[in-house]
Amino acid sequence: MKPPNPRGLVRRLGIAHPLLQAPMAGVSDAMLAIAVARAGGLGAIAAATLSPDALRGEVERFRSAIDAPLNLNFFAHRDVAPTPVQMERWSAVLAPLHARLGIEPSRDTAAARRPFDDDAARMVEVLRPLVVSFHFGLPGAALLDRVKASGAIVLSSATTVAEARWLADHGADAVIAQGWEAGGHRAMFLDDDIDGQVGTFALVPQIVDAIDLPVIAAGGIADGRGMAAARLLGADAVQVGTAFLRSAEATTSPAHRAALERADDASTRLTNLFTGRPARGLRNRLVDELGPMSSQAPPFPYAAGPLAALREHSVREGDGDHVAMWAGQAAALARAERAGDIVMRLVSESEALLAR
Amino acid sequence: MKPPNPRGLVRRLGIAHPLLQAPMAGVSDAMLAIAVARAGGLGAIAAATLSPDALRGEVERFRSAIDAPLNLNFFAHRDVAPTPVQMERWSAVLAPLHARLGIEPSRDTAAARRPFDDDAARMVEVLRPLVVSFHFGLPGAALLDRVKASGAIVLSSATTVAEARWLADHGADAVIAQGWEAGGHRAMFLDDDIDGQVGTFALVPQIVDAIDLPVIAAGGIADGRGMAAARLLGADAVQVGTAFLRSAEATTSPAHRAALERADDASTRLTNLFTGRPARGLRNRLVDELGPMSSQAPPFPYAAGPLAALREHSVREGDGDHVAMWAGQAAALARAERAGDIVMRLVSESEALLAR
Repeated sequence: MKPPNPRGLVRRLGIAHPLLQAPMAGVSDAMLAIAVARAGGLGAIAAATLSPDALRGEVERFRSAIDAPLNLNFFAHRDVAPTPVQMERWSAVLAPLHARLGIEPSRDTAAARRPFDDDAARMVEVLRPLVVSFHFGLPGAALLDRVKASGAIVLSSATTVAEARWLADHGADAVIAQGWEAGGHRAMFLDDDIDGQVGTFALVPQIVDAIDLPVIAAGGIADGRGMAAARLLGADAVQVGTAFLRSAEATTSPAHRAALERADDASTRLTNLFTGRPARGLRNRLVDELGPMSSQAPPFPYAAGPLAALREHSVREGDGDHVAMWAGQAAALARAERAGDIVMRLVSESEALLAR
Repeated sequence: MKPPNPRGLVRRLGIAHPLLQAPMAGVSDAMLAIAVARAGGLGAIAAATLSPDALRGEVERFRSAIDAPLNLNFFAHRDVAPTPVQMERWSAVLAPLHARLGIEPSRDTAAARRPFDDDAARMVEVLRPLVVSFHFGLPGAALLDRVKASGAIVLSSATTVAEARWLADHGADAVIAQGWEAGGHRAMFLDDDIDGQVGTFALVPQIVDAIDLPVIAAGGIADGRGMAAARLLGADAVQVGTAFLRSAEATTSPAHRAALERADDASTRLTNLFTGRPARGLRNRLVDELGPMSSQAPPFPYAAGPLAALREHSVREGDGDHVAMWAGQAAALARAERAGDIVMRLVSESEALLAR
């Protein structure tokens, strides 16, 4: 067994093991959070794609199953509506794909992901989760004050040392160091140059040195070796996402599960095609045909709307051609196990390595 | 202290500590190798940019200073001469830079880096280093057979699991897992898509699982935390380069040293501008003006010749504007210490962490 965490993060989070489930919109709901919490990790619900009612329902589902701390995750981007020209350009890029499949383009131009706003702050005040985590920085001071006044511990992700310092200066209680390997959206908010993004191995110790807050390592951690190594790099805990994607409790689609089973270390790319922001997912037909990063994609999250018809077609067909299949570079280490068993395997392997 | 290495790599290499100095052309010579060897690591000499006589001189210098194993590093690329059109296109890209500085463009179109060939194999047979390492794959079977017949242990670097498997199948005795964070040239030889390159944290355990050879972790390892974490990921040893760049024994230029001192985690980019192949170095004027990756750069190593006048100008001026300043993403962890002290610091910090 490890000695008690020097910075007290685990104690403060009220969990048995220094393992946080990554909130993953579209591939998880309360069921995964419940399973992780039952095994002693911190469960999370991805709130950014849920209506207030749906969020309330998920939290009630979690709380009726277990009395445990919970992390509600929100996006803190600034919503910048695209120009009509941007949307037309994006539709033009997608037009040959619609034509090939003989499907009508989607007219959907709404934002499928809302930034943290007054409604969301009210949900935090009502639901009072122990942890509120943000992606893409932090909300404005007035909104953040309400979150902190609710008593929530505030987490946010940094992809560089500069972002970690910014988060520490603007009220985060702990920082998630999101390395290059991580699946899903890059949290980057001070910079948009993906070429400068930093690998977990280099990022974690430099963030640990730069700020005086607990650091949670994320990116490429999918087994006990990674969990143990992250601790030696100075992380107080780890956040794990991809490792749960094949679990029974995740809502990962069959096509996504099949692609994960085939994945190797080089199967993922950072792509902005699905939402307008770079996110790491498994290569598929859309990514290969358009190239992973398109200068024609409208700002986040407005790239998603015009993809709706293609996405629905892929879901109907059961192919993974035009849907985002988020995954990190350790996707090949993910196993089809129960989520609780995954938590226990990571914890016990990690403890054995650290005790050796 | 760690238990004896399960795969015996350290014993076979005849070194006290599982730490290999990265061979670094242009910023190191026998002096660094001697200092690392004296401290119990494996010293290396970058042979690819040396004439046979110069290489012999460096090896003699090493051996007159210490009786220790030595690693000679060669490039194993296929030399593909560029077309005149490719060279003209590259000169056109560089023309405005020459004009701005009022200097004559270089007429140098020679290959400054030779692939491992008959002459190099003869040098191995004469000099009989304990270790011969290759970058960019392995030489052809006839040449490799001569290296192995000399008794040398053969290492090469993999940037993906597929490359590690290829190296294991083609005669490597151990594989260096070169993660995204690493400074200098990407070793990639089966693929040229840098967007698919894998972070150290994800790469090392997946290569350890895939091959039945010792694995040496490289990329982002610049202190004892990294060295210890790499061991827990399954690596048998680490290869360290950037951590030595500010040492007294490296031949790093003053401009390069100053840039390293200012560096943070996000200061580097993969760039093909300096040689035609992607390599990680500190951003400078050339990288920022042309963009780090240019589709106009001729094949490796022919991009270097036409840059000679700009490079010489930067050396004369003492600026770092048009010279490659290789560094990994942990450059900010590099300290201006003696190389032997750096080895001992990494080893003792790592052992303390692993013993805790």
